[in-house]
Amino acid sequence: MLLPQINEPAQLKMLSIEELGVLAEEIRHFLIEKLSVTGGHLASNLGVVELTLALHYCYDSPWDKMIYDVGHQAYVHKILTGRKDRFDSLRKHEGLCGFVKRSESEHDVWEAGHSSTSLSAAMGMAMARDLKGEDNKVIAVIGDGALTGGMAFEALNHIGHEKRKLMVILNDNEMSIAPNVGAMHNYLSKIRSDRHYLRAKDEVEGLLKKIPAIGDRLAKTAEWVKDSLKYMMVPGVLFEELGFTYLGPVDGHDLEKVIEAFHQADNVNGPVLVHVLTTKGKGYKPAEADSYKWHGISPYKIESGQVLKAVGNPMYTEVFGKTLIELGREDKRLVAVTPAMPGGSGLFPFAKEFPDRMIDVGIAEQHAATLCAALAMEGMKPVFAVYSTFMQRAYDQIVHDICRHNANVMFAIDRAGFVGADGETHQGVYDIAFMRHIPNIVLMMPKDENELRHMMKTAIDYNDGPIAYRYPRINGTGVPLDEELHTIPIGTWERVRPGDEYAVVACGPMVQLAEEAAELLKREGIQVGVVNARFLKPMDNSMLLDLAHAGTSMVVLEEASQAGSLGSAVLEFYAEHELYDVRVHPMGVPDIFVEHGSIKDQRQVAGLTVEALCKRIKSMIALRAFSYKNTSSS
Amino acid sequence: MLLPQINEPAQLKMLSIEELGVLAEEIRHFLIEKLSVTGGHLASNLGVVELTLALHYCYDSPWDKMIYDVGHQAYVHKILTGRKDRFDSLRKHEGLCGFVKRSESEHDVWEAGHSSTSLSAAMGMAMARDLKGEDNKVIAVIGDGALTGGMAFEALNHIGHEKRKLMVILNDNEMSIAPNVGAMHNYLSKIRSDRHYLRAKDEVEGLLKKIPAIGDRLAKTAEWVKDSLKYMMVPGVLFEELGFTYLGPVDGHDLEKVIEAFHQADNVNGPVLVHVLTTKGKGYKPAEADSYKWHGISPYKIESGQVLKAVGNPMYTEVFGKTLIELGREDKRLVAVTPAMPGGSGLFPFAKEFPDRMIDVGIAEQHAATLCAALAMEGMKPVFAVYSTFMQRAYDQIVHDICRHNANVMFAIDRAGFVGADGETHQGVYDIAFMRHIPNIVLMMPKDENELRHMMKTAIDYNDGPIAYRYPRINGTGVPLDEELHTIPIGTWERVRPGDEYAVVACGPMVQLAEEAAELLKREGIQVGVVNARFLKPMDNSMLLDLAHAGTSMVVLEEASQAGSLGSAVLEFYAEHELYDVRVHPMGVPDIFVEHGSIKDQRQVAGLTVEALCKRIKSMIALRAFSYKNTSSS
Repeated sequence: MLLPQINEPAQLKMLSIEELGVLAEEIRHFLIEKLSVTGGHLASNLGVVELTLALHYCYDSPWDKMIYDVGHQAYVHKILTGRKDRFDSLRKHEGLCGFVKRSESEHDVWEAGHSSTSLSAAMGMAMARDLKGEDNKVIAVIGDGALTGGMAFEALNHIGHEKRKLMVILNDNEMSIAPNVGAMHNYLSKIRSDRHYLRAKDEVEGLLKKIPAIGDRLAKTAEWVKDSLKYMMVPGVLFEELGFTYLGPVDGHDLEKVIEAFHQADNVNGPVLVHVLTTKGKGYKPAEADSYKWHGISPYKIESGQVLKAVGNPMYTEVFGKTLIELGREDKRLVAVTPAMPGGSGLFPFAKEFPDRMIDVGIAEQHAATLCAALAMEGMKPVFAVYSTFMQRAYDQIVHDICRHNANVMFAIDRAGFVGADGETHQGVYDIAFMRHIPNIVLMMPKDENELRHMMKTAIDYNDGPIAYRYPRINGTGVPLDEELHTIPIGTWERVRPGDEYAVVACGPMVQLAEEAAELLKREGIQVGVVNARFLKPMDNSMLLDLAHAGTSMVVLEEASQAGSLGSAVLEFYAEHELYDVRVHPMGVPDIFVEHGSIKDQRQVAGLTVEALCKRIKSMIALRAFSYKNTSSS
Repeated sequence: MLLPQINEPAQLKMLSIEELGVLAEEIRHFLIEKLSVTGGHLASNLGVVELTLALHYCYDSPWDKMIYDVGHQAYVHKILTGRKDRFDSLRKHEGLCGFVKRSESEHDVWEAGHSSTSLSAAMGMAMARDLKGEDNKVIAVIGDGALTGGMAFEALNHIGHEKRKLMVILNDNEMSIAPNVGAMHNYLSKIRSDRHYLRAKDEVEGLLKKIPAIGDRLAKTAEWVKDSLKYMMVPGVLFEELGFTYLGPVDGHDLEKVIEAFHQADNVNGPVLVHVLTTKGKGYKPAEADSYKWHGISPYKIESGQVLKAVGNPMYTEVFGKTLIELGREDKRLVAVTPAMPGGSGLFPFAKEFPDRMIDVGIAEQHAATLCAALAMEGMKPVFAVYSTFMQRAYDQIVHDICRHNANVMFAIDRAGFVGADGETHQGVYDIAFMRHIPNIVLMMPKDENELRHMMKTAIDYNDGPIAYRYPRINGTGVPLDEELHTIPIGTWERVRPGDEYAVVACGPMVQLAEEAAELLKREGIQVGVVNARFLKPMDNSMLLDLAHAGTSMVVLEEASQAGSLGSAVLEFYAEHELYDVRVHPMGVPDIFVEHGSIKDQRQVAGLTVEALCKRIKSMIALRAFSYKNTSSS
């Protein structure tokens, strides 16, 4: 066994290529075994074993900067940089992060989670290097999926123009998470499949010589033709046109070939793109056979590949997917748009029944949002199905193209709130704060999966502008689902538990948490009302006024940034109405990035637990008693 | 004169090509004359006179959808669609909008203001058309500058894959606002300059025939070579690789050629890109000579081309630019990054003195932000100089790459607040609301241009994470500028006018407005304090507590979205500190999109005037008197 002795990447340089190959197999076994217990991003990491070994064999991390796009494919990098003993804690609270993490190792120089940032990062590091007069290498590893993100193209455009020394490794596995779509994907497929590209260069050059010499008139044209032909020997003409030297395609599981390509790349004095072909899930049959399923996987049985799924109520995502089909049957205007997350967003059943009305645009949230605006303006009823965290990419398009046009776009904002193991880059805690101030939008969140269904009906029947429903990445409450769907009057809240003196105003799964707290307090003789603030915008002004007139003290509870979200909206409402006697106690996610762990862990970190809520309510009661005493004595 | 009779585009179809040429000249004269009085986007509109005429000559608006990217080049379109009589009110309050505007005409089918959205819009409209079984044309007109925006590439990638009938007109004038940068620009230049592309196709094909027949071994290679060669006849190989049929380049001022190209394009059954070469400012010498200056122009004298500049104090932008040089001399780490706005952001002087430390990335805000993160992480001190409205494009990168990394990036957020004639797509009123909830960021706004200088010093000396200063698109107050720069303690506010019972807490130019109101009220015997809330995050907790303890009633005044901005932050602070006796009256921009006009008009619309403030303060005083009475009587 070689792996147990490898504690830092410099040790690799003393191994032969053959030994590296042995190490690759050991790493595969390590990954398959460890992840069978913890779960994690198996398929993508199995795909980059040789590539990562070759990188650390050829370059000197951290002096040379290795930047992993998204960063979920850095497990091998973590294994080689002294972190293999921490894999039992992978993606757990205070355990090893599932992405690149600077606090873990000096070898982690750039963190991500969202895709398509690595080329910008590499360019920044190359520019800083040149300004400082240093000579380290800068290497970005980016998947073909991430290449469809617009910011990757912005970076390509800049890099190709500036001509700095910089290496891009295109890790081409034909997948983002789902199979890739888009013209760039088709282009790469052509390179992969066109065997002529792999013909010996001299064979073609020999042929060129057979073009006879010609006189005057055509001579220049002939010369140009020869130049063009030589140029066409390069399969990556698109990248060449953008200013890169293209090398490849190279078999990414052939260590020798990959290392050779890196040496060739080192001799290029400018931006170079090495096109490496890899297979997601390489070396583990179930993952090779269905790399989509095995992208991010729960614990599994190694022999059978059987995935051990937790039993539970259906996820909100699943209820969304099923309800969308019902609506699609009723309303022919309904079109679903996803930025490369058809499965994660629960859209496969819809796609199967309505292939013409299912649009996967690839990793391209900006385009997706604006596309929805145009679809809506031409009479369709698009639903932009997107994770809260990825919707951040489309903020400008939501303001400028959807809300300013007041277009009838629906948003299905999945993974709103904490997301668990993916951690701080994926938390869906900002969307209320970054959408609430935009004119025209209606913003909802259901207290359970049954209400989600009615909100979806509400949204599709609403034709006065953009409307969004957000829901968490958790199992539903298990509540029975009404067969008949109905609309909910816009801007109405719901009292789910009586109580005038004290109340919790909550949204989403926090409603249930509030009910649990109220139940506990009831045993102590304290009556606390619970309000389901299912519309975040517009709010229920009439209920807000009722609460004020009843003299209710309230906690506003939300699994969202305390700054700028629902609590903030309630405070603004009362201030605008000059109702200064109302006591509002905001309780949301504090001003920190909450790291990976379970959602339960994350709620604990943020102070969003039943215990914390009970405590908060009690201190609210104590404060009120105190100030009443003060008022009466004054 | 033909122009006076043209009131709808259908009339063009009855003209001869020659008459269209005459009309083109009349339109040029019309534009040059009208804009000499109103100002506006002259150069880009002079560049598209023939192109727009050809569009309306060949297609049937509004049945066929014409989508103008950005939309500032639609003046000719407006002239041809019945709006020529409204040009005296161009960009004025309640006058003709400087961009495409649906409320003005049925021929305006898509609004913009920000760049690079037209391809997504076109794709959405083409998809909706196909789903509805209609057969209208969809045409997007996009500049080469706008093509560098990532979302345009996301759309290209999707369009090229889907193969729907759709026409993209690449209006190539070698400029965005500033001269273009980037590999795509270099690529287009090559097409423009390579005269071989213009050779007759048959000439090259004749040459091909001269390759002799070859047996077995090389036959297939030879065939591939021939295919490749034919392929290379097309200059736009990059677009072809992405799934488009490329036509061009075509002289965009030759009506006959442009019309012919459109006819050719009509025969393509799938996405087609027509590459049209135009000259910005065409037909007006001063504008042709310096199209950058003449992109958006103030009123001017037609004969001399002399621009009539309003006299006034230096703009904040100018003070920023000058101060940046001082800082650049002191601190070698300072690097300026702009997304295609070197001039608008006042960076030309810095670029001249420090060409190596000036980075123009093209229209690419996402890349710019992440590039800054990487520069900072490698020890540089980048300043991301960006307009508030365009920074919306980089929201995700600010969260995910800058703030989460806690990178030492500085933001110079120009055009914060209302922007005047550009109107609703360009208002800088959301950045406080969309940045305030992000952990780690420091957010400042100066009350005058002298304070801006000190904030810039504060930012460059701050090495604990991201820090931003925002400033308006107006002239400074004319205050003397301190030569010596000093830092301002982070999170400290300033009392600029005493007054404990009543106060206005304001930021930016609103501080001056508050002082004016306080001065007026003083004459009526009312003492109102003014606080300069120069840090929006972190706020001055100690002063906030002082205000609370002094029992101050306050108006929080800001030229920013009332939802989620400073007023909201102050309310949150007091609620979190359970200080329920403090009376906070928020006064910001209401929940509407504020249209074009002067900044003064826009403040009027939003209710942010001295008069409105005085009224608000008086009602605050009345309310307090009333409630004190009530309290004492209860």
